[in-house]
Amino acid sequence: MKLFTPGPLSTSQKTKEAMLSDWASRDASFERLTLSVIEQLSDIYRFGQTTECVLLQGPSSYAIEATIRTLVRKHERILCLSNGVYGDRMYQIAEQSGYGADLVALPYHQAITEEITATLEIDLAQYDFLTFVHCETSTGVLNDFEAICAFAARNRLRVIADAVSTFGALEFSSQNESVAAIVGSANKCLEGVPGVTFVFVNRDQLVRAEKKCDSVSFDLHSQWTYMNENRQWRFTPPTQVVAALNTALEQYHSEGGRSRRLARYESNYQTLIAEMDALGLQPLVERVVQAPIIVSYILDENHRQFSEIYRDLKQRGRIIYPGAIKSLNYFRIGCIGRIQPDDIRSLAVCLKGALSPTQRN
Amino acid sequence: MKLFTPGPLSTSQKTKEAMLSDWASRDASFERLTLSVIEQLSDIYRFGQTTECVLLQGPSSYAIEATIRTLVRKHERILCLSNGVYGDRMYQIAEQSGYGADLVALPYHQAITEEITATLEIDLAQYDFLTFVHCETSTGVLNDFEAICAFAARNRLRVIADAVSTFGALEFSSQNESVAAIVGSANKCLEGVPGVTFVFVNRDQLVRAEKKCDSVSFDLHSQWTYMNENRQWRFTPPTQVVAALNTALEQYHSEGGRSRRLARYESNYQTLIAEMDALGLQPLVERVVQAPIIVSYILDENHRQFSEIYRDLKQRGRIIYPGAIKSLNYFRIGCIGRIQPDDIRSLAVCLKGALSPTQRN
Repeated sequence: MKLFTPGPLSTSQKTKEAMLSDWASRDASFERLTLSVIEQLSDIYRFGQTTECVLLQGPSSYAIEATIRTLVRKHERILCLSNGVYGDRMYQIAEQSGYGADLVALPYHQAITEEITATLEIDLAQYDFLTFVHCETSTGVLNDFEAICAFAARNRLRVIADAVSTFGALEFSSQNESVAAIVGSANKCLEGVPGVTFVFVNRDQLVRAEKKCDSVSFDLHSQWTYMNENRQWRFTPPTQVVAALNTALEQYHSEGGRSRRLARYESNYQTLIAEMDALGLQPLVERVVQAPIIVSYILDENHRQFSEIYRDLKQRGRIIYPGAIKSLNYFRIGCIGRIQPDDIRSLAVCLKGALSPTQRN
Repeated sequence: MKLFTPGPLSTSQKTKEAMLSDWASRDASFERLTLSVIEQLSDIYRFGQTTECVLLQGPSSYAIEATIRTLVRKHERILCLSNGVYGDRMYQIAEQSGYGADLVALPYHQAITEEITATLEIDLAQYDFLTFVHCETSTGVLNDFEAICAFAARNRLRVIADAVSTFGALEFSSQNESVAAIVGSANKCLEGVPGVTFVFVNRDQLVRAEKKCDSVSFDLHSQWTYMNENRQWRFTPPTQVVAALNTALEQYHSEGGRSRRLARYESNYQTLIAEMDALGLQPLVERVVQAPIIVSYILDENHRQFSEIYRDLKQRGRIIYPGAIKSLNYFRIGCIGRIQPDDIRSLAVCLKGALSPTQRN
């Protein structure tokens, strides 16, 4: 089965085979494995001495909640910029965790850019933190990381960024003084398996968060200091998942790192838009706001139901994803994972047969 | 490498090989896999219609925090009975999460029984919930599940029990009216890999918890209803870990279920105590309070340092665990995982050579 999904996605055989061992989570060999993961993650962007990498068990939504609960105090307010499902979720996490948070719901088809932030009519002085999603996987729209951080810096807001679906492929900087934390995931552009997530946190912010978190599980300061002092995880880590991430990162770096990973995804993306163009499919958003991560296409009355298209494709060993915004009829195809332009081309052949009932007969 | 540890532990080759596929987490085949896990977990104890099984991503400490945050309201008070590290952790989780909680620290070498609860000089009317650990993995002591639940029922306390290291092997009942939730783990007696945990929750309690949890990630009511309505996980599940658990459960049931699993662990345990007796090792706690899960042995001045013993054993492909109570010099040997009495016997042979410097020369 080939997955053209926003993750969990297709991983290499080598990565999966790294899970064929049992690891004692407090043994020196697993300590070395953990350290290797942290070093390899840190080597991707080289954020430098001011930033710490903290690993966390679980999906990346947990890491977002952990980052908010660790860094933000209860009297501080959070401004959540959103143009999709994952931006909304950051707001929901902040709000349900008991923070004063406001959601600015921006149009789903526009990227959040300097122009957009300039038009916000909000009293920014009341906020301490700003949250946003780098690539909105619900549509594929890429928000402008640097512009949002510059906007935050001008307004003395500290940024918590969800870079879950871009970490390891796209460019962004933690050097901007406003960046408090960037959340990433093992099972997106790094092509690991799901079950572990990580946060690059500004060191000063992390140090100041000592004994401040109202959750044992999500206390990133404790997680960080415990691992520094003991070289071990506070609670049982998903040993096989961590081993898979280590192997995935070895492949990532030996294949040429971020630039090569991005180049492959760009090739997948270029191939995809050419093939979908040829099938007459309309993208949900304009190309200029689109990341080479996941692409959304509109279904109209000439097409079959998504469930039928999905079933047809699955029978041919390929999985694509439905839309994520309930009011719109569209589907999504991922460019990420262990896939190549040839995989995209053969997906397009299958999709041609699956799209419309007339073409099928 | 053979692991004689409290988990992560030795798993079967078949269980590990279940991780060699990529799964789309929202595809029907993964939905079936998830349902199969829930059904197989529910088949172990047959708690019945009044109890729901909720799966959660992450280690079991997360499930304990999620259970407390979901079921307990902030004005309610929690009594935490503890005779070890994991009992203390339940208190720490409750307290840091903002609950009024009290820790009753009982002697580590005694089981919590009817006699012990009868001697508690506490005003019990002030509490709403009671937490305890079934088998304290920090020592191996087995607390009396039924007695504690009966005590709770008499005092109108609802019980949240950590059965992480006993679920699937030992006996206990959720039929006692006082039981609100029982937390279990994939990577203990079920012999799965770490990364997923589960809670059996009283249905009425769960229903009443709707929209009450102050955490998105740890809202077991949302997790439960979302899975009921969509047959999918709210957030990305650790797909390979879930697949491994499903396969581990298939082996569990085909091998004869709980009674056979317990019988094998009992054989491991009986073999262990005979072999350790022969080596002159003193158990940390009396046999009468000991579960056939993990056993603690005292190190004295005639023995080498634990780190040296550990290194020697590891060179021979075997891993045991250090003690967990800092003030005591002891080590732990697990009886659980894919190990047999013969594995225990050959561990004892290796341990004989590793224990003391004189025997080595």
